[in-house]
Amino acid sequence: MSSALLTDHYELTMLRAALASGAANRRAVFEVFARHLPLGRRYGVVAGTGRVLDALADFRFGDAELSFLRDNQVVNEQTLEFLASYRFSGDVYGYREGECYFPGSPIMVVEGTFAEAVLLETVILSILNHDSAIASAASRMVHAAGSRPIIEMGSRRTHERAAVAAARAAYLAGFASTSNLMAGSTYGVPTAGTSAHAFTLLHSSEYDAFQAQIDSLGADTTLLVDTYDVAKAVRTAVELAGPELGAVRIDSGDLAVAAHEVRQMLDGLGATKTRIVVTSDLDEYAIAALAAAPVDGYGVGTSVVTGSGAPTAAMVYKLVAREDAEGALQAVAKKSVGKPSRGGRKNAFRALEDGTATAELVTTSPGDPAPEGSRPLLHELVRGGEIVGREPLAAARHRHQSSVAELPVLAHQLSQGDAVIPTVFT
Amino acid sequence: MSSALLTDHYELTMLRAALASGAANRRAVFEVFARHLPLGRRYGVVAGTGRVLDALADFRFGDAELSFLRDNQVVNEQTLEFLASYRFSGDVYGYREGECYFPGSPIMVVEGTFAEAVLLETVILSILNHDSAIASAASRMVHAAGSRPIIEMGSRRTHERAAVAAARAAYLAGFASTSNLMAGSTYGVPTAGTSAHAFTLLHSSEYDAFQAQIDSLGADTTLLVDTYDVAKAVRTAVELAGPELGAVRIDSGDLAVAAHEVRQMLDGLGATKTRIVVTSDLDEYAIAALAAAPVDGYGVGTSVVTGSGAPTAAMVYKLVAREDAEGALQAVAKKSVGKPSRGGRKNAFRALEDGTATAELVTTSPGDPAPEGSRPLLHELVRGGEIVGREPLAAARHRHQSSVAELPVLAHQLSQGDAVIPTVFT
Repeated sequence: MSSALLTDHYELTMLRAALASGAANRRAVFEVFARHLPLGRRYGVVAGTGRVLDALADFRFGDAELSFLRDNQVVNEQTLEFLASYRFSGDVYGYREGECYFPGSPIMVVEGTFAEAVLLETVILSILNHDSAIASAASRMVHAAGSRPIIEMGSRRTHERAAVAAARAAYLAGFASTSNLMAGSTYGVPTAGTSAHAFTLLHSSEYDAFQAQIDSLGADTTLLVDTYDVAKAVRTAVELAGPELGAVRIDSGDLAVAAHEVRQMLDGLGATKTRIVVTSDLDEYAIAALAAAPVDGYGVGTSVVTGSGAPTAAMVYKLVAREDAEGALQAVAKKSVGKPSRGGRKNAFRALEDGTATAELVTTSPGDPAPEGSRPLLHELVRGGEIVGREPLAAARHRHQSSVAELPVLAHQLSQGDAVIPTVFT
Repeated sequence: MSSALLTDHYELTMLRAALASGAANRRAVFEVFARHLPLGRRYGVVAGTGRVLDALADFRFGDAELSFLRDNQVVNEQTLEFLASYRFSGDVYGYREGECYFPGSPIMVVEGTFAEAVLLETVILSILNHDSAIASAASRMVHAAGSRPIIEMGSRRTHERAAVAAARAAYLAGFASTSNLMAGSTYGVPTAGTSAHAFTLLHSSEYDAFQAQIDSLGADTTLLVDTYDVAKAVRTAVELAGPELGAVRIDSGDLAVAAHEVRQMLDGLGATKTRIVVTSDLDEYAIAALAAAPVDGYGVGTSVVTGSGAPTAAMVYKLVAREDAEGALQAVAKKSVGKPSRGGRKNAFRALEDGTATAELVTTSPGDPAPEGSRPLLHELVRGGEIVGREPLAAARHRHQSSVAELPVLAHQLSQGDAVIPTVFT
């Protein structure tokens, strides 16, 4: 399916006017950067890079797209001709997926002609802003959960396709699995789930429902115990499944109190290995508050797919340099009140001291080597139109673990604060 | 593209266990209702109904979907066989799209066997929760804007496919147009847009950029005037386009002050008909604050596509009745602490007095006629598996206008408050 119309109307009118004026073929450098972190957050997480590369590969104007643009007089024939043979032929550099990020530094750099690079603004920002918002929230939840696994189960609380991307972003930030089958099928994210209250209500009794579930899914399944009376349900569950019962899920009430009571009951019934999974409007704060409760796993829905109060990252796509009439690359920047941009092609490095991050270094001499004690953050993703930066999702997940481990411990305070390291422009 | 895997894992394990226990074929009634309105809102707007019908038509398990489920051992062979021939054969009733809604009443009712109806939970909720959240926020913005048109331009701030649905939802709630070309091509939403700062920066001077844009798009275009200096840009704009200049756009600074200054300048230059469009992180509050400013149109991005603080509606999909072992339909309800449900198939009506809504009436005798002075809210969408409730998007847009016009004036207070009419269960 073509991604070409996942684009703002004005990208095409700009293209049209630039083709007419002759400026369309000027070499241009666009940079993606975040104006700020989500309110009070200490760090952000880059996610969506792999999906950007997929969208780039599918960015083609076929007959259907061209007919729409012609019929609605969005552009003229000269522009339609350009679009019909559109292939991005430039270069893209970017932070690797899973890397932490800080405000102002170039998370992605797109170089090409103005014509070919301007068209990609909308779809690149849509993907990075959404996926990074989810991953940034998910990373905090993963840290709050410590060694306990989290299942992402928020599909029903977000757009049906956003749900698939959200499951992917949460997984790369450290979630253990997702309820979303399409995320399993498309991205190989492990999927999980057993039953809802409807299953218990469907049967003539909770006893019958548990029996049916155990018969079908085995004693190692997770039984949902809060449809009627938790204590009674736990007794029925162990009576039917025996001490081999995999887990019970509690989805309502005071989860800390309920977890303690259920643990005591399970232990008393000999089900000492049966795990307790809790769900019900959890976010990073609620997870942290349950740290001392006998909980073995969390299910998180609404809060992770909506970025826990920050449903979008604040990334923008700005022209920072372009060829002048003589063919020389010139830095450019707008001066809009309160929203200025920094001109010039940049490079970014993470400065480290004894393995701990101390600053995001942004230089305007892209060719310079990494400053001593720092590692480079920009990697080649597309070279001359050819995608070279693909990697397995597992690599991004692994990278996130290392990247977050480098941050000062203050990064994990859940209270509101500033970025944990400064962005230094040199 | 099949929508069948836009589904939570547990819907399929429940199906598997219910097929094994024999309960899968019990007749079942699921209802979608909102637990509450978004925080402080006076009313909600139902959106996504048409997209739900599209998703239902595409809910088919083909070879790719079945292979994934088999290879990942999500279900067993008996379940795969059921899925291979899955076609929803039941009935669906619902609020018509664009209708206002209030907490607790059945926004959608799905009747069929448990097996066929349970599978639809995730995709129905994803669509209704997302689209209704956007439309509910958009409706407030439209009212705040009065007769001034609003362009939806938030695609870059949300998932790339969610952006298309958001543009559709904003349009049905009264937005004039969208920047999103896919929303134009898929749903016929009018699209709009002219240029960004990058276009000005691309050219050697603002003068050159404006000239190029006017040459290509005509004097009736919208010129972006805040790249460098607003006053200078306005002078250049009128110098080049003359008094026929369509509009100028201001995207930064104190918009009220800037609008007054620019209006005065335009009038002084004879461009008395040139419109002023403002953009830059507008939400319903900022729009209302600009009511007295000489603004002719708004562009709204982030806040509308993220539901202006409420990115998801609080809709759930609950089993309210099912056949018992003797074939009789029984009301069922869970008792979970703080999250109980109300058993029994329901019907919903809007009570009116002198044309003004006074209550959302919910009855548990679905066959009864509309109480006097009320109009029925549930309409047939699917009959015996056949989709009968499709309608043009324009009809939903028109309905929203009438539905919102019926609400007490208090509905339009932007301050936080309770639902403007009560939901009365009889």
